[in-house]
Amino acid sequence: MEKMKIGITQGDINGVGYEMILKTFETEEMTSICTPIIYGSPKVATYHRKTLGSQTSFQVIETAEAAKENNVNMVNCFGEDELKIELGTPSEEAGKAAMTALDQALADLQEGKIDALVTAPLNNATIKVEDSEHFTGQTSYIEHKTNDEKKALKLFISNNLRIALATDKMPVSEIASHITRDAIAEKLVILHNTLKRDFFIDNPRIAVLALNPFADGQEETAIITPVIDELFKRGVRCIGPYVADQFFGTDAFTRFDAVLAMYYDQGIAAFKALTQNDGINYTAGLSIIRTAPAIGVSYELAGKDMVDEQALRQAIYIAIDTTRNRNRFDKERSNPLKKQYFEKRDDSDKLKLDQEDAN
Amino acid sequence: MEKMKIGITQGDINGVGYEMILKTFETEEMTSICTPIIYGSPKVATYHRKTLGSQTSFQVIETAEAAKENNVNMVNCFGEDELKIELGTPSEEAGKAAMTALDQALADLQEGKIDALVTAPLNNATIKVEDSEHFTGQTSYIEHKTNDEKKALKLFISNNLRIALATDKMPVSEIASHITRDAIAEKLVILHNTLKRDFFIDNPRIAVLALNPFADGQEETAIITPVIDELFKRGVRCIGPYVADQFFGTDAFTRFDAVLAMYYDQGIAAFKALTQNDGINYTAGLSIIRTAPAIGVSYELAGKDMVDEQALRQAIYIAIDTTRNRNRFDKERSNPLKKQYFEKRDDSDKLKLDQEDAN
Repeated sequence: MEKMKIGITQGDINGVGYEMILKTFETEEMTSICTPIIYGSPKVATYHRKTLGSQTSFQVIETAEAAKENNVNMVNCFGEDELKIELGTPSEEAGKAAMTALDQALADLQEGKIDALVTAPLNNATIKVEDSEHFTGQTSYIEHKTNDEKKALKLFISNNLRIALATDKMPVSEIASHITRDAIAEKLVILHNTLKRDFFIDNPRIAVLALNPFADGQEETAIITPVIDELFKRGVRCIGPYVADQFFGTDAFTRFDAVLAMYYDQGIAAFKALTQNDGINYTAGLSIIRTAPAIGVSYELAGKDMVDEQALRQAIYIAIDTTRNRNRFDKERSNPLKKQYFEKRDDSDKLKLDQEDAN
Repeated sequence: MEKMKIGITQGDINGVGYEMILKTFETEEMTSICTPIIYGSPKVATYHRKTLGSQTSFQVIETAEAAKENNVNMVNCFGEDELKIELGTPSEEAGKAAMTALDQALADLQEGKIDALVTAPLNNATIKVEDSEHFTGQTSYIEHKTNDEKKALKLFISNNLRIALATDKMPVSEIASHITRDAIAEKLVILHNTLKRDFFIDNPRIAVLALNPFADGQEETAIITPVIDELFKRGVRCIGPYVADQFFGTDAFTRFDAVLAMYYDQGIAAFKALTQNDGINYTAGLSIIRTAPAIGVSYELAGKDMVDEQALRQAIYIAIDTTRNRNRFDKERSNPLKKQYFEKRDDSDKLKLDQEDAN
């Protein structure tokens, strides 16, 4: 069986991306389970390699097709161009370079030259892109580029917790007005489907947190509880709403396949407290597979040999696992048996195997 | 040196209070460091003792003055009255019994018959009190009874984290409008003073969290940052605002003596995730010392021998420590040296030792 090709972007060249990449591929373990293809600059990689005294070596290739198994392949996205490296400092040049690598990796992903994408962190503030006034992060950019408008759902993953959010990162004053039946239902359906297809969980259990700390506000009564009931009837095994602090304060969260928190700090402050920067970001709901370490650009650690690469390693594992799961899930459903009997009033001859599902 | 007298209320007789008390005093360690005085019902205690097969025995006394060292003393708050026990079930009778014990303990505390108060959990929904339309919890009741109106600040404590909140438990839709300069300044001053006086930390460092997940909203700019700057100038070493998930996602929180979160779920979901019900609630800002295990009434665990008593044990330790600290702090300041020189324009002969302090 051919190994999966995992594309990995360099992220911000002044941040911790290269350090995580270099450390991840220091041992041969990673190239034994996938064929990595780094999208970056060989010159910048060499700089970081020397700074850290790393032994990891890359095989520079011009296109992803040239990637070889058992090598750490690097697609040179910058030709002979020199990039100015200023460790720990935000720069427009670094932002531009991050996007060049991301764009090339995304194009290869959409053309099937790589199987999944893992992105290193970049700094949103340094990014200028033409077709988007406000770059709000790699996830929304990828969602836009893959024509999966408004479908992406960030899923934060650790060893014993998967958590998604009903609302985007937004000011606290705006959260309550964004808690709508549609928003919650949409997220629950994406979550349910990704758990089935990408995580291969047959009948996933989803815990839904309350918006308010007493769980008895008008949002719980009028919105969250009814939508849970409705979705449950449609086959999404969602349960709640749970009071957030009690939910995290016991082992309740280990009894669910995923959690839907209502807003960013409610879910992610607790998630980060539990995972301490070892968490993974999985982008659910898209036509492609993408994961990332759930950390920021971390300039304060750049070039200091202080970053733990565990999150990048885990992001690669999950990219491999979810790609395999999705392929298997789709394959099992791609060639259904021909319908064995026909109802007179139904002249369709196609088995609707997924009708029970929520989408 | 006489041992400190620690009053402990029974809490809800249908909940886990007695189980925690029985387990806490199973070994002699606790009576070697303090003289415990349980406020409760000997009959109910016996029932729980039999249910759990516990070996802990109480010395029943009529008033706190009769308490003896090396005994687990119990003030009988109910005479010959029978209380109906329905394990795991909320009842008005249990609510009333919880308040009877609390009232007697509070009265003894205010009269100096006990040195500090530790409360077992009760169920707010079962409490009917005359002079308060809405009983919102033991803390606000104690604040009211001790005439410390609006002064109480709940401080959640674990081994490596102390966290208080700028706003009370309230619907998410109301949080932003309660983030005011006055509210934050008031909480920071109480926090600063309790860290100095009750935790004996000379120059405490306080981290302040941002309200919004990006930490760049109008509340940060117009309210939180200015109030941090102002209080810092007044001698309160507060620093921030920090993005909540990043703050909990690194070991940043271990570098501060306390944290001020902006609202309940932001701080306490993460706190509970880290402490898993082993946390303590310390009521700062009051004239008396009171602690409690930071857990709810936990009916689902009642009578099943499933509760970990560690939180009650810790609550007792902290009650002892803070009482000792406060006594020492006050003693050091009770008899200042007479002023050595007099300025002509200042005819006060009293040293204003605490003028540098925030209050």
